[in-house]
Amino acid sequence: MSDGEQELGITESKQHSPGEWYAEVVRKAELADYAPMSGFIVTRPRGYALWEAIQERLDGWFKETGVENAYFPVFIPESYLQREKEVVEGFDPEVAWVTQGGHNQLEERLAVRPTSESIIAPYLSKWVRSHRDLPLRVNQWCSVVRWEATETKPFFRTKEFLWQEGHTAHRDEADAWDETMTRLEQYERVYEDVLAIPVLRGRKPEHDKFPGADTTTTVEALMPDGKSVQGGTSHYLGQHFAEAFDITYVDEDEEERVAHTTSWGLSWRALGALIMTHSDDQGLVLPPTVAPEQVVVVPIWQEENRKEVLEYGEELTAALREAGLRVEFDDRDERNPGFKFNEHELNGVPLRVEIGPHEVEDGEATLVHRPDGEKAVEDRAGIAETVEEHLETIYAKLYAAAEETLEENVRSASDRAELLGTIGRFGGYVRTPWCGDEECETAIKEEIAAEIVMVPLERDGEPEEDDCAICGEVATETAYFAKSY
Amino acid sequence: MSDGEQELGITESKQHSPGEWYAEVVRKAELADYAPMSGFIVTRPRGYALWEAIQERLDGWFKETGVENAYFPVFIPESYLQREKEVVEGFDPEVAWVTQGGHNQLEERLAVRPTSESIIAPYLSKWVRSHRDLPLRVNQWCSVVRWEATETKPFFRTKEFLWQEGHTAHRDEADAWDETMTRLEQYERVYEDVLAIPVLRGRKPEHDKFPGADTTTTVEALMPDGKSVQGGTSHYLGQHFAEAFDITYVDEDEEERVAHTTSWGLSWRALGALIMTHSDDQGLVLPPTVAPEQVVVVPIWQEENRKEVLEYGEELTAALREAGLRVEFDDRDERNPGFKFNEHELNGVPLRVEIGPHEVEDGEATLVHRPDGEKAVEDRAGIAETVEEHLETIYAKLYAAAEETLEENVRSASDRAELLGTIGRFGGYVRTPWCGDEECETAIKEEIAAEIVMVPLERDGEPEEDDCAICGEVATETAYFAKSY
Repeated sequence: MSDGEQELGITESKQHSPGEWYAEVVRKAELADYAPMSGFIVTRPRGYALWEAIQERLDGWFKETGVENAYFPVFIPESYLQREKEVVEGFDPEVAWVTQGGHNQLEERLAVRPTSESIIAPYLSKWVRSHRDLPLRVNQWCSVVRWEATETKPFFRTKEFLWQEGHTAHRDEADAWDETMTRLEQYERVYEDVLAIPVLRGRKPEHDKFPGADTTTTVEALMPDGKSVQGGTSHYLGQHFAEAFDITYVDEDEEERVAHTTSWGLSWRALGALIMTHSDDQGLVLPPTVAPEQVVVVPIWQEENRKEVLEYGEELTAALREAGLRVEFDDRDERNPGFKFNEHELNGVPLRVEIGPHEVEDGEATLVHRPDGEKAVEDRAGIAETVEEHLETIYAKLYAAAEETLEENVRSASDRAELLGTIGRFGGYVRTPWCGDEECETAIKEEIAAEIVMVPLERDGEPEEDDCAICGEVATETAYFAKSY
Repeated sequence: MSDGEQELGITESKQHSPGEWYAEVVRKAELADYAPMSGFIVTRPRGYALWEAIQERLDGWFKETGVENAYFPVFIPESYLQREKEVVEGFDPEVAWVTQGGHNQLEERLAVRPTSESIIAPYLSKWVRSHRDLPLRVNQWCSVVRWEATETKPFFRTKEFLWQEGHTAHRDEADAWDETMTRLEQYERVYEDVLAIPVLRGRKPEHDKFPGADTTTTVEALMPDGKSVQGGTSHYLGQHFAEAFDITYVDEDEEERVAHTTSWGLSWRALGALIMTHSDDQGLVLPPTVAPEQVVVVPIWQEENRKEVLEYGEELTAALREAGLRVEFDDRDERNPGFKFNEHELNGVPLRVEIGPHEVEDGEATLVHRPDGEKAVEDRAGIAETVEEHLETIYAKLYAAAEETLEENVRSASDRAELLGTIGRFGGYVRTPWCGDEECETAIKEEIAAEIVMVPLERDGEPEEDDCAICGEVATETAYFAKSY
C-alpha cells in the first residue's frame, strides 16, 4: 500500500456499481494491474498466489487420478488449426497470429494457442499403439490467447488467460465418460471445498457445446449480481477427434479400434468468481484455504507496555506458525492499529488477532472474523487449535452465505412472460421446460440477454411433463436460463 | 514403449556420435518429441516430470528467500522493446512477432516475450514508492521465444524454452549484489545437490554480459564431450535499468533515490545438462533426486512359485512406498525380465530390485545400481532404509564421476599455441592469463570455436603475474576458454 493513505479503501459499492467495485478491489488489493495492451493484465504476487493455491490442489488431485503433466508448444501451425476446422464444425477461433520470426516473414502463419486439441491430438495418435497405452492422460498448465474484442475484466475477460487443459484417450465410451465426470467432480470440489462457492453441475445444450464434443459438462457458479459464471468445463469428445486425428489402438483381440477422447479445462476465471462472490465494500474477502496470510496478529500498545505486548504477540505468532498456519505479525511502528485493520481487511486476511495490554494481562487474544466482523475473546492457552476452529467457522460462513444466495435464486417459470419477468426482476437461474431448439433460446436472448447456461446432466430423452415455455411444442429438456459472464 | 521391441534400446554411441546419441536418448526414453515447427519440441510427461522436480525445489528456495511469483503478459509491445533497445546497448533480440489479431492487422506489433525486463521494469517503477517497498522480488515460470535459426537440440537449443525469470529492485548496490549471489548459489545448489553435476561459478567477460548488466554471473557445467554449458545466469544490473525505467524510491531521509536491480534465470537447459552428463549407451541415467521412479521392483517367477514371488514383491514394494520412496512394481505378465531390465535401464530408473524364488526363500532382495550395474544382495528386514542408503550411494557415484571429469578437464595454458593445442586435444576448460580485450577471444574463436565462458567471480583489478596468452599485453583477468553449447 505504497500509494498513500488516501488511496486506501474501496470507494465503489458492490451493490450499486458491481463492475467498478470489482475493478477497484482487484487493483487495491494488489491482485492485478492492467497491461499496456488492451485486454491483457499483469497478475501481481497476491493474485498469483491465489492461482497457485488452486493449482496446487487441482494438480495433486489430477496426479492421484492418473494424469501426467506435459508441455506442448505455444504456437500451432495454421494448417493444424485448419485441419481441426475442417473436421470440427463450428471451430473458428479468433487468434493472435505470428507472421514474422526475427527479420523474416514466415512461410506459414503460427497461431498462439487458443486451446491445444489440434496440436495434442496428433501426438496422442503417435503415442497410442496398443490397448496397453490406454488410458493416456496428459495435462498442461499454460496460458492461452483468444483475440476477442470485449471490455477487459481481470480474470473474467482477458485476451490471455492462465488455465490448465487436460487431454485424454480411452478404450471405450464408458471409460471416457468416467474420465469426463472425474474431472467435472474435481472442478466442483475446487469450488466447493477450496473456494467456498457452491456450484450447479450440468451440461451445455447441443448448440452451445465445445465444437466437436459429444457432451460438454459444466459447473456453474452464481455471482451475487445474479449472473452465472461457467466455472470449468469437461468435454466427452466421443470418437470425433480420434477419427479425425487417427487416434487408434490395437485391442486385446488384435483388432484396430478408434479411441474415445476427452478434454477439460479450468481457468483463472475461478479467481474472478472467488473475488466476486465473497468480497465486500471493505475490500477482498478470502476463505482461509487460499488466503496467502490466514491470520494477522496486530499488537496494540502504549509506550509504557510496548515491550510486553510485542513479546506476547511474537510468542503467539510463533505458536500459530508452529501449528502450520500462515501468519503475519504486523508490528510496524509507523502505522496505527486502525490503519492496519483497514489494510488487512482490504487484503482479505480471514482472521485478525488483536493483542493489547488487556489481552496480555488476562492471557487472552481477541479474534475478529473478516467476513462479518464477529469478535471473540479467547484463551491464550490452546490458541492454535482455537484459531483453526475459527478459520473453519469462517469458511463455513462464506460457504453458507453463497449457498443461501444460490438456493434463493433458482426459480421456475412455465411460460415466456414468467421467464422474462423472473430473470428481469431477480436474475439468478430460471428453470423452464424447453423443446431443445436453439431458436427458443435466441428469442429470450434477444429480449433480455439471458441464455441457457445448462441443462441437467442426466438426459433421459423422455418428454417433459410440460410444454416448452417459449414455443409451446413438446419439451424434452429442462433449461436453466441465466445472464452470464 | 509401444513401438515394439525392435525399437527398444539405444543404437548410437555416446562417445563416437554424441549428438545422435543424445537425440536418441531423448526420444527413446520418451522425454521429448520434435514439434511440427522446426525449432520446437513437445515435452512428454517423463521429460516434464524432470522439469517439475527442478521447479519444485528452486521455487521452494526462492520463496524461503523472499521471492514471490507473478505473471506478466506473453506479449510485449514493440515500443516497449524499442525503449529497452534505446537504453540498453547491444539489446536486439530476434523475436517472433504477432502482427494479426483475429482478422485484423494490429496497429503495433507484439513480440512474444524473449525475456521480460522491458515489461516488468515499468511495473517495478509503479510499485516501488518508498524504501519500505524494497527489496521487491518477483519471479515467473513461463516460456520464452527466441527466433534463432540454429539446429534444434531438445532442451539445449529450441526456439521456445521453459525457464524462470526473477526480477528484483533494491536500495543499494550491496543489497542487489547479495541478491545476485543468493540466486547464483541457488542455481549452483540445483546442479550440485539435485542434478549431481558439479559446476564452476564465475562471471562473463565484459563483452559477453547480458545487455545492460553491470555484472553477469554464471554457473558453468562441463559436459562429457568437453563442452561447457551455461547452467544459469544471475545479473547485477546496477542502476542502468532503474534509471531507464524510472525505478526510484523515497528513502528514510525523504530523498528520492534510484534503485539497483537484478535479474536471474534458469532454463530447461538444465535438463539437457542432466541427460547429457549421466546417461550412457544403455539410455537415460537419472539421480534418485529427480527420477520419477526411484526404484523398480521386478519379480522373476516360474509358474510353480508365481504366487509367493508376486506376494513377496508386493509387500516389499508397499514397504518402500511407505517410506516415501517412488516405486514401480513391474508385474507385467506379457514381458520377460530381460525386456523389463532393458526398458527400465533405458528410462533411467536408478535402482532395480530383483525378486526371485531364492530371494523369497532367503528373505532377501537383489539390488542393482543403474549407473554401473553394481549388485548387492540385501536382507528383506529393514529394506526401506537399505534402499535409501543405496540411492544415496548412487547419487554420490554420479556426482563423483562428474566431478572427476570436471577436475581432470581444467587445464592451464600460458601461450596461444598451448591454448589452441590443449582445447583441440582435450576440450574442457583452459585457464589462461588474458588482457581483457575481446579481440583476443575472437582470434581464438576463429581458429577453434572456443570462447571465454567465464572469468573468476572475484575481480581484484590487479594485473596478473603473466602476460595475456594471446597478445602478450598486460593480463588483468584469468580467462576460462572452452567450447560451449
